[in-house]
Amino acid sequence: MSTDRRRAILEGAARVIARRGVRGLRMEELATEAGVSTALIYYHFKDRAGVLRHTLEFISDRADRYTSDASGPGHPDGHDGPDGPRDALQELEQSLLLEFQDLPEVRENSTAWGELRASAIFEPELREDLARATLTWIYDVADLLGHIRPSTPAPALTAAAERLTGLLEGLSTRWLSGALPLDHARELVKEAVSTEVERLGR
Amino acid sequence: MSTDRRRAILEGAARVIARRGVRGLRMEELATEAGVSTALIYYHFKDRAGVLRHTLEFISDRADRYTSDASGPGHPDGHDGPDGPRDALQELEQSLLLEFQDLPEVRENSTAWGELRASAIFEPELREDLARATLTWIYDVADLLGHIRPSTPAPALTAAAERLTGLLEGLSTRWLSGALPLDHARELVKEAVSTEVERLGR
Repeated sequence: MSTDRRRAILEGAARVIARRGVRGLRMEELATEAGVSTALIYYHFKDRAGVLRHTLEFISDRADRYTSDASGPGHPDGHDGPDGPRDALQELEQSLLLEFQDLPEVRENSTAWGELRASAIFEPELREDLARATLTWIYDVADLLGHIRPSTPAPALTAAAERLTGLLEGLSTRWLSGALPLDHARELVKEAVSTEVERLGR
Repeated sequence: MSTDRRRAILEGAARVIARRGVRGLRMEELATEAGVSTALIYYHFKDRAGVLRHTLEFISDRADRYTSDASGPGHPDGHDGPDGPRDALQELEQSLLLEFQDLPEVRENSTAWGELRASAIFEPELREDLARATLTWIYDVADLLGHIRPSTPAPALTAAAERLTGLLEGLSTRWLSGALPLDHARELVKEAVSTEVERLGR
């Protein structure tokens, strides 16, 4: 089926990027990796930039999924939204901590995201999509912070969310490159959440 | 002179890495960039891994220099150490904020650092040196935090320093890839410093 092949191409692109980086992504290798022809890749995604853009989206969706899996029984799909401040705090912590899991899918996803981020320095056509994906993430985090600290003005919530997600990206690269143990990374993120939440409460 | 050529090679390596990434660093291109023979590169640095290691050191030293230039007249070389808590807070803020300057040297240096960090995921022989350079930076920041908040236990100082430097790396990549305006990055870092310092005071 067409959607199966499309998905196979995106899964293959995420694997190749995580393994060789964005600059190492050649359409011939991707075709081999996904078990399709290069013509089919161009048919579905037009060009290399199209592949990169859709891989970014694929990676963001996958991260959304594994960072909301652990929601309680009241949130079977992880998207019901929090019921109150305590709920929101737990959901926020979980969604950030689940970026640090010693699972192949999480490692691959975070590695590919870091590669796409870093390569936007050199490939300007990626920038707009990446900026949009980053903003979506920031607003999701700001929204949870708003449930925890209802009367906080929006700019303060956004700034806190920018710091938490920025910290997460910085620590993620350290973790993936072996400079930071997983448990310690999670500890640092947990403390960062409580620090920002306390600050917003003052 | 031999030290001039050595320096030219390292300057050239930082430029090439900032332009093409670590994976784009070919010894022939570096030789052309630095105006030397590849034989001379191998003579000074033994192999590609040697070039990468010494470039990392070169980049760290350069960052040390431009992040301590703005010390007051009492600190002509920026390394006299702070006289008191207020001095230390100013020095800490300055050293972190000076990582965000719209100057070619700073952009090149931060881009190359980010590239070396990201490539350590794929090139394990870089990891040890990178982890050491990161620790040095963390301890410098923890030391300043210790001057600001004298009776704080060392682990709390180190954790705060890990978060501040991790945040800085995350925001730096966002800035360099055009997802975060310079002024706003500086604002976020400033607030992060005050948040961590307040937290340590409680």
